[in-house]
Amino acid sequence: MSERALRVAVLGCGTVGTEVVRLLREQATDLTARSGARLELVGIAVRDTSVPRDPVVDPALLTTDAAGLVRRADLVVELMGGIEPARTLVLDALAAGASVVTANKALLAAHGPELYEAAEGRGVDLYFEAAVAGAVPVVRGVRESFAGDRVNRVLGVVNGTTNYILDEMTSRGVGFDEALADAQALGYAEADPTADIDGHDAAAKIAILASLAFHTRVSIDDVPVEGIRHVTADDVEAARRGHHVIKLLAVAERRTTAGGEGIAVRVHPTLLPTAHPLAAVRGAYNAVVLDTEAAGRLMFYGQGAGGAPTASAVLGDVVAAARNRVSGGRGPAESRYAQLPLLGGDQVTTQFQLRLEVADVPGVLAAIAGTFGDHDVSIQTVTQEQTGAADGAAVLVVVTHRASEAALAATAEAVARIPSVKRVLAVTRVEED
Amino acid sequence: MSERALRVAVLGCGTVGTEVVRLLREQATDLTARSGARLELVGIAVRDTSVPRDPVVDPALLTTDAAGLVRRADLVVELMGGIEPARTLVLDALAAGASVVTANKALLAAHGPELYEAAEGRGVDLYFEAAVAGAVPVVRGVRESFAGDRVNRVLGVVNGTTNYILDEMTSRGVGFDEALADAQALGYAEADPTADIDGHDAAAKIAILASLAFHTRVSIDDVPVEGIRHVTADDVEAARRGHHVIKLLAVAERRTTAGGEGIAVRVHPTLLPTAHPLAAVRGAYNAVVLDTEAAGRLMFYGQGAGGAPTASAVLGDVVAAARNRVSGGRGPAESRYAQLPLLGGDQVTTQFQLRLEVADVPGVLAAIAGTFGDHDVSIQTVTQEQTGAADGAAVLVVVTHRASEAALAATAEAVARIPSVKRVLAVTRVEED
Repeated sequence: MSERALRVAVLGCGTVGTEVVRLLREQATDLTARSGARLELVGIAVRDTSVPRDPVVDPALLTTDAAGLVRRADLVVELMGGIEPARTLVLDALAAGASVVTANKALLAAHGPELYEAAEGRGVDLYFEAAVAGAVPVVRGVRESFAGDRVNRVLGVVNGTTNYILDEMTSRGVGFDEALADAQALGYAEADPTADIDGHDAAAKIAILASLAFHTRVSIDDVPVEGIRHVTADDVEAARRGHHVIKLLAVAERRTTAGGEGIAVRVHPTLLPTAHPLAAVRGAYNAVVLDTEAAGRLMFYGQGAGGAPTASAVLGDVVAAARNRVSGGRGPAESRYAQLPLLGGDQVTTQFQLRLEVADVPGVLAAIAGTFGDHDVSIQTVTQEQTGAADGAAVLVVVTHRASEAALAATAEAVARIPSVKRVLAVTRVEED
Repeated sequence: MSERALRVAVLGCGTVGTEVVRLLREQATDLTARSGARLELVGIAVRDTSVPRDPVVDPALLTTDAAGLVRRADLVVELMGGIEPARTLVLDALAAGASVVTANKALLAAHGPELYEAAEGRGVDLYFEAAVAGAVPVVRGVRESFAGDRVNRVLGVVNGTTNYILDEMTSRGVGFDEALADAQALGYAEADPTADIDGHDAAAKIAILASLAFHTRVSIDDVPVEGIRHVTADDVEAARRGHHVIKLLAVAERRTTAGGEGIAVRVHPTLLPTAHPLAAVRGAYNAVVLDTEAAGRLMFYGQGAGGAPTASAVLGDVVAAARNRVSGGRGPAESRYAQLPLLGGDQVTTQFQLRLEVADVPGVLAAIAGTFGDHDVSIQTVTQEQTGAADGAAVLVVVTHRASEAALAATAEAVARIPSVKRVLAVTRVEED
């Protein structure tokens, strides 16, 4: 039986690219049967063809001429990362009528609409399962499986590096710097870990998920982000004592305000009760919880990074794009009809926990409670910690009801000025469910 | 802007059908935007139009003429359950060129190939996300997301009724009959609970997942099944003492035997360590774990039954099928190219746990170990239970390495004939990872 062949170009040959090349070769028969076309690897664009590589990579396929390679392909797999030259190459590929599969979250979160429009203009596909949570099929889940439902909230542990660091701090009691050094030694964190630990990687991923879940354009610039650099061993230990864990959480939720419905997107360290499904996400794993109107709560869990898991997600998309070429069909286009407004800081409320070191004297609680009341921030619970305070001092843990960040900041400032309050030890957001 | 309209027929108006009708109405604007076509509900086939129904169901749309309704539709949503008349109506719909979305696991597990062929013959779609694990998007996951990977094992808690019953037995210490009665009172079990508690419902679901995961036709008749009727409060309590839980597990795995690669599919009560990701699945929830070559281990978790969750899965498929009608594309067809042999009982091995009540006399352990050795079943651990045995007796818990069911049965029979062995209390399969 003669089979149609599709020319596949791979841009970038790092860890993920090498595994994509391996799967294309080792699973060739299966991939042909599943996609209806022989997937012929026509080239691999790299910066330097002389670098030693895994033997699975045929040196004859390497080229530094990415722009030329793109023009010879039916399917382009973009694994270079970063904005340029990835953006130009992807736009060129789409303009030339190739379908594109990309793992590039930064590119999508910054220039998604432009890429979608280029794909739509030529009637080709843009797939990007691997851009969010590696092998965890949450992009297809949100984009396709819940297309008949109404997503109300997306909560994700979508950055393996920070999860590994916080997990180490929790299980071994070490500080942030030591946990980061361990993560770097084990290859879970890069030499420059900024994008991970400052939350930008998670922000790109939640921007992508929010766009899909709420049918609204959300860019990484719309996502307020707070990283985990300032989280201390003491914060983690205090959370443990209070039956919580600290996770770097990416959140996108539908909220109804006085002005109508809007969406709130953010990334920040968050206290989660130990019984929360995301509290158990260990090491470099990723998980995403969806709260939907009809289906209720769902969770997806799996490896969020690494060469082989990411390559699995890429190849799943390659098969989908190939099937569409064969059948004449189309993958999902951009869905932005809802155009919900993005809520700003003042319109977004969360619960907060404040840990306060106070003088162990009568009246301190009344003073604190009064200050919260003055700022219209209502208190859910106040607990005195049993350990950790110096002589003559106590640590109070205040959990608020939902408050805006501005209201909370003003409250914390006023509380810090109460004479019997020695220090505000930590202010952390809380998600109880 | 003028929009294309697609005529939707719903067959069956029970809990799920009513919720599908509700979502079609309440989410009409969203569904149109997402699918690119207005979804016009043209009729709802029921057995009796005079039954009182939820006000969301327009009585003018009700008809008892299902065959006539099917001929007027572009998309047929089959929610009748059972084999006939569902099979004939689905075949008629496909033959007439309608795409079909069904939640009917029994029909798919018994007649899947016939339905696929009818769909392929007319170039239309057959979608069935709701047939397995309700709203948990595991069908799309296995069928599409891991199309570029190699699934090695599927492990599922896919029947909410039995999971609820076993969970009640575990958390409240009640017996099977009482837990079943509770489940019936709460609507988690039907008046005739046979299909659930004897494992047939789970068998249908794992047959469907195995077909997709291994690209091989698997029918419900290929699935050896053992239900949970015989699981006692004592078994559940003994599991708890040994840091395990008992779950009704649906398993499909790729195994390499002397004759080459094959697949083993089965449903049975299983001891899982409490740290296993499926051990934490509570109440009527469902979860499926996939072990894949490249992506590693993944888990999907969510509500496996109920009107609204199942309707969510149905509507996701309706949007996919509608998009394909609009774009001229096609959903995935049957994939059965691998045609792996199904391994029979003698070729399939699992670990077993035997609980034995024995006389507390010297030499009993040697006699038991000798008998296992005589049957070539090797022992992994033997533990003496600390509680539960009568005076002068002890309870030994033997965990074997992998053994075939036949070898294990012969061993258990021989062990029962050892004079110092009073009773074989339970023989249960074990999955340690």
